[in-house]
Amino acid sequence: MNLKVVFYSVGKLTKFLGALMAIPCMVSLAYREPDFLPLGISAALTLFSGYLVEKLSSRAKDEEIRHREAFAIVSLGWVVVALFGAIPFLLGGTFSSFVDAYFESMSGFTTTGATVLTNIESQTHGILLWRSFTQWLGGMGIIVLGIAILPKLAVGGMQLLAAESPGPSPERLKPRIAETAKIMWGIYLLFSFSEVLLLKLTGLSLFDSFIHMFSTMPTGGFSSHTLNIGFFDRPGAETVITCFMFLAGGNFALYYYFLKGNPRRLFKDSEFRFYSFVMIAAILLVTFNLWGGTYKSIWSSFRYAAFQVVSINTTTGFTTQDFDLWPSLSRGILLLLMFIGGCAGGTAGAIKNMRILILLKKGYQELLRLVHPRAVIPVRLGGRPVQEAVIAGITGFFILYILVFLVSSLILMKLGFDMVSSVAASAATIGNVGPGLGLVGASKNYAFFSPLAKGILSLNMLLGRLEIYTVLVLLVPSTWRK
Amino acid sequence: MNLKVVFYSVGKLTKFLGALMAIPCMVSLAYREPDFLPLGISAALTLFSGYLVEKLSSRAKDEEIRHREAFAIVSLGWVVVALFGAIPFLLGGTFSSFVDAYFESMSGFTTTGATVLTNIESQTHGILLWRSFTQWLGGMGIIVLGIAILPKLAVGGMQLLAAESPGPSPERLKPRIAETAKIMWGIYLLFSFSEVLLLKLTGLSLFDSFIHMFSTMPTGGFSSHTLNIGFFDRPGAETVITCFMFLAGGNFALYYYFLKGNPRRLFKDSEFRFYSFVMIAAILLVTFNLWGGTYKSIWSSFRYAAFQVVSINTTTGFTTQDFDLWPSLSRGILLLLMFIGGCAGGTAGAIKNMRILILLKKGYQELLRLVHPRAVIPVRLGGRPVQEAVIAGITGFFILYILVFLVSSLILMKLGFDMVSSVAASAATIGNVGPGLGLVGASKNYAFFSPLAKGILSLNMLLGRLEIYTVLVLLVPSTWRK
Repeated sequence: MNLKVVFYSVGKLTKFLGALMAIPCMVSLAYREPDFLPLGISAALTLFSGYLVEKLSSRAKDEEIRHREAFAIVSLGWVVVALFGAIPFLLGGTFSSFVDAYFESMSGFTTTGATVLTNIESQTHGILLWRSFTQWLGGMGIIVLGIAILPKLAVGGMQLLAAESPGPSPERLKPRIAETAKIMWGIYLLFSFSEVLLLKLTGLSLFDSFIHMFSTMPTGGFSSHTLNIGFFDRPGAETVITCFMFLAGGNFALYYYFLKGNPRRLFKDSEFRFYSFVMIAAILLVTFNLWGGTYKSIWSSFRYAAFQVVSINTTTGFTTQDFDLWPSLSRGILLLLMFIGGCAGGTAGAIKNMRILILLKKGYQELLRLVHPRAVIPVRLGGRPVQEAVIAGITGFFILYILVFLVSSLILMKLGFDMVSSVAASAATIGNVGPGLGLVGASKNYAFFSPLAKGILSLNMLLGRLEIYTVLVLLVPSTWRK
Repeated sequence: MNLKVVFYSVGKLTKFLGALMAIPCMVSLAYREPDFLPLGISAALTLFSGYLVEKLSSRAKDEEIRHREAFAIVSLGWVVVALFGAIPFLLGGTFSSFVDAYFESMSGFTTTGATVLTNIESQTHGILLWRSFTQWLGGMGIIVLGIAILPKLAVGGMQLLAAESPGPSPERLKPRIAETAKIMWGIYLLFSFSEVLLLKLTGLSLFDSFIHMFSTMPTGGFSSHTLNIGFFDRPGAETVITCFMFLAGGNFALYYYFLKGNPRRLFKDSEFRFYSFVMIAAILLVTFNLWGGTYKSIWSSFRYAAFQVVSINTTTGFTTQDFDLWPSLSRGILLLLMFIGGCAGGTAGAIKNMRILILLKKGYQELLRLVHPRAVIPVRLGGRPVQEAVIAGITGFFILYILVFLVSSLILMKLGFDMVSSVAASAATIGNVGPGLGLVGASKNYAFFSPLAKGILSLNMLLGRLEIYTVLVLLVPSTWRK
C-alpha cells in the first residue's frame, strides 16, 4: 500500500471540501446570521488541513494509483470528509456531542438522511444549508464512484457498467475518472437546477427549494422541517420531488445517452425496466393495501403510496405520512424496498436492481440446469450473456450485504432494542435510506440511540454507501503487504 | 416426462405407507381404544390404493428413471403420502376439516412439527403414535433423499455429498439408492432404539419414549403434551433429547464411517465442525443474554439456552420454555438459526451449514479477488477446491430460498398478520422447524390460521423439505416437454 498516494488524494479532496464550505458561510452572511463565523472557521480549518496534507505528500502526485490505493482513497476519503463536515455542527452549537455531529455528517455525505437533529426548525439557514449540502456533495462522489471508479475496480459486479461509462477508456485510472466526472456532474447540475426551478414554481421558497433539491438529487432525505415533505402538503411539490427521486435513482450514464439523442438506450435498459417495474408494482400493492382502511379515497391512497414507495425504493427517505402506522403488508413492502434500492450508476443505495435482477436470473438458470444437466444456459442481460466473474462478484456482494445486515441487527438487539426496530434501523442505514420502522419510524429520528449504537449505524452507512467491498477490502491483510 | 414411471413409484410408496399404518392400529388394539377401526380402515384404503396404482402402471417397472421423473416422484410422493397420512386424522375425528388434517400430516412427513392440534392430551394413543410416526417415516425419506438422491440430481450443491455417500456408485439411480438406503436406515434404527432406551432410563413411560424418539430422530417436534418437553421438567430427558437432536442434525453418511471405525472423517469434516461451532456460539450468546434477567442462575440460563438453541438449529422445534418471552437478542438468534439448520445428509431442514459455510467462503473469496485481480483463488472446503457448479447450485438455492421466504412473508402480512409473526411463521415452515415467534411462538400453535394461510404454510413445508428446487423444477415448462 502506497500511503503517500492515498494521503495526497484525500488531502486534495479535503481542500476542495474546505473551499465548498464557503458557500453556506456566504448564505449565513446574506441572512445576517451569526453562524457565518463558525462556518468560516470550519472552512478555513478544512481548507488548511487539506492543503497541508496535500503539500506534505505532494511527491506522490504523479505516482500510480493501484486498485488497493483506490480502495483506501475512497474509504478514507469518506471518513475524513465526514469528519471535517462535522466541524460546523460542533462549532455552530448544533450538537454538543461529537458522535452526534459525526453521525449527522456521515449521514449527509453517504446520502442516507438519517437524522439525530431534534430541533430542526430552530436551526440557522447556514447550518441547514450545510446539512443538506453534504448530501448533494456526497451524491456527486457516488455518481463518479459508481460510473467511473467501481466498474474499473470490478466491485460487486459493477464491471457490468464499464461498457456504459461515457468518456475515453485508458488503462490508467486517473484520466478516465476526470473525464467521466465532468460529463456526469454536468447532468447532475442540469437536473439540480431544473428541480430548484420547478419546486420554486410549485410555491416553495427559494431556500426550501434548494434545501430539498440538495436532498432529492443525491437521494438523501434531510429536510428543513420536522414534518419533512409532509409539512408542505402540496401535491405539486410532491410530484416534482417524486419525479426527481425516480430520476436520481436511475443510471446517470444512460441519461447522458438520452440527452445526446439516444433515448432507446435508456428505455431498452434491462435494469431501468426492472427498476420501473418494481416501483410500479410496489405502488399498486401499497395503494390497494391502504385503500379503504388507512385512507378513504383511492386518490389519497395512491398519492401517499406513490410518494413513500418512490422515496424508500430510491433510498431517499423523504416522508409525507407516518408509514409506520400503515398495515403490515405496506410496511413489509417498504422494508423489502430498503434492500432493493435504485439502479447502479445513480445516487441510490442498497443492493440495487441490476444485482437483484441478475440474482433472480441466476436462481432461474440453476433451475433450468437441473432439467437440462448438459446444456449450457448463460444468464443473459439485455440479450447478452453475463460473465461468470460478474455473477460471482454480485453473489459475493449479496452475501456480505446480508451478513453486515444480520450482524448489525443482532448488535442492536443486544443493546436492547426490539426486533423490528433493530432490523429496520440496520436496513435503513446500510441501504442509505434514512427512516426505518418502529423506533426509527417515519415520524421519529435516531437521536435516542446510545453513542455505541450511533457508531455502528454510522459504520453501516459507510459500508452500504461504498458497496461493502470497498471498506472490507482494507481489512484483508494482503491488501497491506508490500 | 414418463408419468407411468412416476405413478409406479408413488404407488409402491403408498402401498408401503398403508402397511406401516398397521403399526398404530395394533397399538390402538393393545390399548383397547376404539381408534383401531379408523386406523385399520385408513391402512386398508392406503394399501389398496397404492397397490392399484402400482398394478395399473406396472409396465413401467423396469423403465429408466431420468432426472425429471426423479423430481416428480419425490415431489408427488411427499404430496400423496401426506394425503393418505391425513386419513386417520379425519376418520378418527381428530380434525373435522380436511385442511387441518392435511396440514398436520404434511407437517409430520416433512418433519416440521408445526401443529394445528389444540387438544393434544385428549387424543388416543393410536392417533398420537401415528402423528409422531409420520415424522419418523419422513425422516427416513429425507436421509435417503439427502445422501443418495439429491447428490445424483445435483440439487443446490448437494453433489458435494456424492463423495461421502456409502455404497456402490453405478450410473443408474435405482440400485445405488436401494443400497445406500439400507445402510443409512440401519444407522437410523440404531440411533432410534438407543434413544428410546435412554429416554426410558430417565424415567419417561415407554409410550412417551417412543413418541419423542419419533420426533427427535427426524428433527420433527410433535409431542404428546401441550407443554412439549417442558411438561417433563427432567434435565436427564432433556440431555438425552439434546444429544440425539444434535446427532440427527449431523450427516448420517459420516456416522457410517464413524461406526466403521473411522471417526476422523466425522471430526475433520468442515461442515460438522462449522455446525458444532455455530451451535456452541449460539448457546453461549443466548446463555449470557438470559443470565441475570430472564433466569437468575447461570445453570438455568445454560440449561434452557442449550435445549432451545439445539432444538431450533436442528429444526426440531421441541421446547421447554416459551422463548418468545426472551429478550430480543435471544429471539433474534433463534430466528436466524431457523435459516441455518443442520448439516446436509441429516434430517434437519433449512439452508444447512454446508451451504452457509460455502456462501461465507465465497464472500471472502470475492474480497480477495479485488485485492489480487489476477490471482486464481478457489473456494476450498476441507482443503479441496469446491467446483464452480457446486457454488452456482448453492447460490441459486440461497436466492430461491430467500425468495420463497419473502413471498410467503408478504402473503401472510397481506392476510393481516403482524410482521414478526409472518416472518417467523414463514421461516419456521420453510425451515421445517415448527414453532416460530409471536402468534406462532413456542407456547402457541398454527390452529388459528385461515385455510388459505394453512395451505401456504403447508406448501412452505413441502418446498423447504424438498430443497425448493425439487418442487420448482416441475413448474419449468421444458420439464414436461417430450
